[in-house]
Amino acid sequence: MMEVTRRYRFCASHRLHSPQLPAEVNQQIYGKCNNSYGHGHNYEIEVTVSGPVNPQTGRVADLETLDRLVQERVIEIFDHRNLNEEVTYFQKLVPTTENLCIIIDRELRDAWPAVFPALKRVSIWETARNIFVI
Amino acid sequence: MMEVTRRYRFCASHRLHSPQLPAEVNQQIYGKCNNSYGHGHNYEIEVTVSGPVNPQTGRVADLETLDRLVQERVIEIFDHRNLNEEVTYFQKLVPTTENLCIIIDRELRDAWPAVFPALKRVSIWETARNIFVI
Amino acid sequence: MMEVTRRYRFCASHRLHSPQLPAEVNQQIYGKCNNSYGHGHNYEIEVTVSGPVNPQTGRVADLETLDRLVQERVIEIFDHRNLNEEVTYFQKLVPTTENLCIIIDRELRDAWPAVFPALKRVSIWETARNIFVI
Amino acid sequence: MMEVTRRYRFCASHRLHSPQLPAEVNQQIYGKCNNSYGHGHNYEIEVTVSGPVNPQTGRVADLETLDRLVQERVIEIFDHRNLNEEVTYFQKLVPTTENLCIIIDRELRDAWPAVFPALKRVSIWETARNIFVI
Amino acid sequence: MMEVTRRYRFCASHRLHSPQLPAEVNQQIYGKCNNSYGHGHNYEIEVTVSGPVNPQTGRVADLETLDRLVQERVIEIFDHRNLNEEVTYFQKLVPTTENLCIIIDRELRDAWPAVFPALKRVSIWETARNIFVI
Amino acid sequence: MMEVTRRYRFCASHRLHSPQLPAEVNQQIYGKCNNSYGHGHNYEIEVTVSGPVNPQTGRVADLETLDRLVQERVIEIFDHRNLNEEVTYFQKLVPTTENLCIIIDRELRDAWPAVFPALKRVSIWETARNIFVI
Repeated sequence: MMEVTRRYRFCASHRLHSPQLPAEVNQQIYGKCNNSYGHGHNYEIEVTVSGPVNPQTGRVADLETLDRLVQERVIEIFDHRNLNEEVTYFQKLVPTTENLCIIIDRELRDAWPAVFPALKRVSIWETARNIFVI
Repeated sequence: MMEVTRRYRFCASHRLHSPQLPAEVNQQIYGKCNNSYGHGHNYEIEVTVSGPVNPQTGRVADLETLDRLVQERVIEIFDHRNLNEEVTYFQKLVPTTENLCIIIDRELRDAWPAVFPALKRVSIWETARNIFVI
Repeated sequence: MMEVTRRYRFCASHRLHSPQLPAEVNQQIYGKCNNSYGHGHNYEIEVTVSGPVNPQTGRVADLETLDRLVQERVIEIFDHRNLNEEVTYFQKLVPTTENLCIIIDRELRDAWPAVFPALKRVSIWETARNIFVI
Repeated sequence: MMEVTRRYRFCASHRLHSPQLPAEVNQQIYGKCNNSYGHGHNYEIEVTVSGPVNPQTGRVADLETLDRLVQERVIEIFDHRNLNEEVTYFQKLVPTTENLCIIIDRELRDAWPAVFPALKRVSIWETARNIFVI
Repeated sequence: MMEVTRRYRFCASHRLHSPQLPAEVNQQIYGKCNNSYGHGHNYEIEVTVSGPVNPQTGRVADLETLDRLVQERVIEIFDHRNLNEEVTYFQKLVPTTENLCIIIDRELRDAWPAVFPALKRVSIWETARNIFVI
Repeated sequence: MMEVTRRYRFCASHRLHSPQLPAEVNQQIYGKCNNSYGHGHNYEIEVTVSGPVNPQTGRVADLETLDRLVQERVIEIFDHRNLNEEVTYFQKLVPTTENLCIIIDRELRDAWPAVFPALKRVSIWETARNIFVI
């Protein structure tokens, strides 16, 4: 068994704000990330698959297939977007990077080809200092 | 003479759109960066000063003074902000990273202490692939 | 369950030398790290917590709380210090990065708030080539 | 128990081509990596060992011993080589990074000193975007 | 005036060998890079343009145009290639990174649009340790 | 003309303190870097040479010669050292990275082979945030 990880990038903006909570509580929980007009990040994500090495091809997974999947289910949805305003999932969910990680994982699993090696892990670098892994 | 460079970071969102130009032209010039709701970046900036090494202290510049200046004139204005909506300069100026670079350079020069070594260069990494230097 | 990692930095000096061992053995085990006057590193550490995503806030952990904890228990003790001379733990313990990792892990666990998600892992980059994980 | 990871680098060229498969299938599976004259990479590898911290030395493993082992069993075999033409293993095996990872792991295990802490993991960065872990 | 730099990547293999020089001299000059079967690198290049910021668009250069130019004149020629065997220029020229830098600079200048801001500099990272700038 | 840069690393400790100045002034100028027992860094240095590309070899400089020079004049003097205690130059000079840069530049120029291309620049990364160039 081997793990193969491929790295992708997208840029997006977001504002951390829970409509169910009072303004002061939002401010206290999210600090400057609660700023009304939002801010943004260069997100870097890693998608890790895990499986045996095919003895004929010497590969665990076809990375072109993975690229197409990530393009359709991640890059096209999130790249150069305002997560709060343009991504359906975040109409009811605060677009923290934790939730973004859950959504990307779900999007990929939803479209994951049956014959593909297992999706092991999705990791997101929100900044060079903050990393989230599901 | 020696150059001393110090690196800082901030996150912000922006939308590239010139109100003086028709929608199609904006779309053509800025592509997905023209997306109405904006997107964002982890900006990294380098401030470079140039001067002689003080023979007594062995330093070119007091980096604490530089940190305070960058904090007041750059981080507090741009960090966790929507450049279009929250930064006065960009009410009339498209918040491209070129213009951001010009503005940061101007802000720093404006408050630069007379006794400080010369401000040589401001550099901005918009992403790991796009770098702007004034 | 999700893992959230936050990265911190500090600079320190150390000398690898075990007073219980003869000089030649110290030299043989630690090589140039046994050099009497010591040397130093820019240590980078990652603190990883693991827990469920709070459905209301969309967060695993309050990173400001984590920052304060790391500031008090790590940065203030180790940053800009000579580990052998200024850190109590290393009066009897060789300040290898392995032991540093154990001590930082212990310091954090000791002060870890009961309500906080679990401390999963402490990682230290001694240099870009040597990484230690507990 | 602690994990200690050390990073190494080598440069090599390879061509992905399975002699057992027809030309079109090779082209389809390996794309531009099937290009007849080959291409190359700056491979970065991480070797991770896992073991207890020796209470007397404060170390998990003697990194000089590890360096010598990696030098003999990895760097000397793969560095500045054409993997297809110069590495015996790849006379019958397609030199994908998956297979390279398996071979390096095998080479290291084969020569691993009985008294050394366990070899936990070999990781290879083929490029900054593609990572393989066994 | 402002400098804008954009970063690209390609992988290639090469062998350093001058047919005009005797074998021993080749060996002496190029060392392990003279190894008959060649080796390879992940080259990273930076293309830097320099010009005024257009007051209407806030941009120095249209990066899509630059991307197309680099794709046609650099990536398509060098990516996943054996420089010695597949690049016409290197039939008579040793494919050192110095010569590669000269050729890429010439290729770009040759196709450079008259209306585009000046090409200021081409930089190549052969490895993380060796950088060439023309 | 082309610039060729090669990157090296060493670790050292230092304390910033000027014996000619009173304790409070030292504390004020150097802050926590004045801490009596010192601290340390992983210094990264770049040595840049500039010259024409030799038409026969395709090289600007023989990097093995440069490596030997840097090994003798930089690594052996500074690596795994306490700059204040073990480097003659710093008996009278505060070991700021500015002064370190001046000393390394002088050491290299002093031993620079007459036939070698010009030494253009010495750059030092004291940390990932502080860069000094002479």
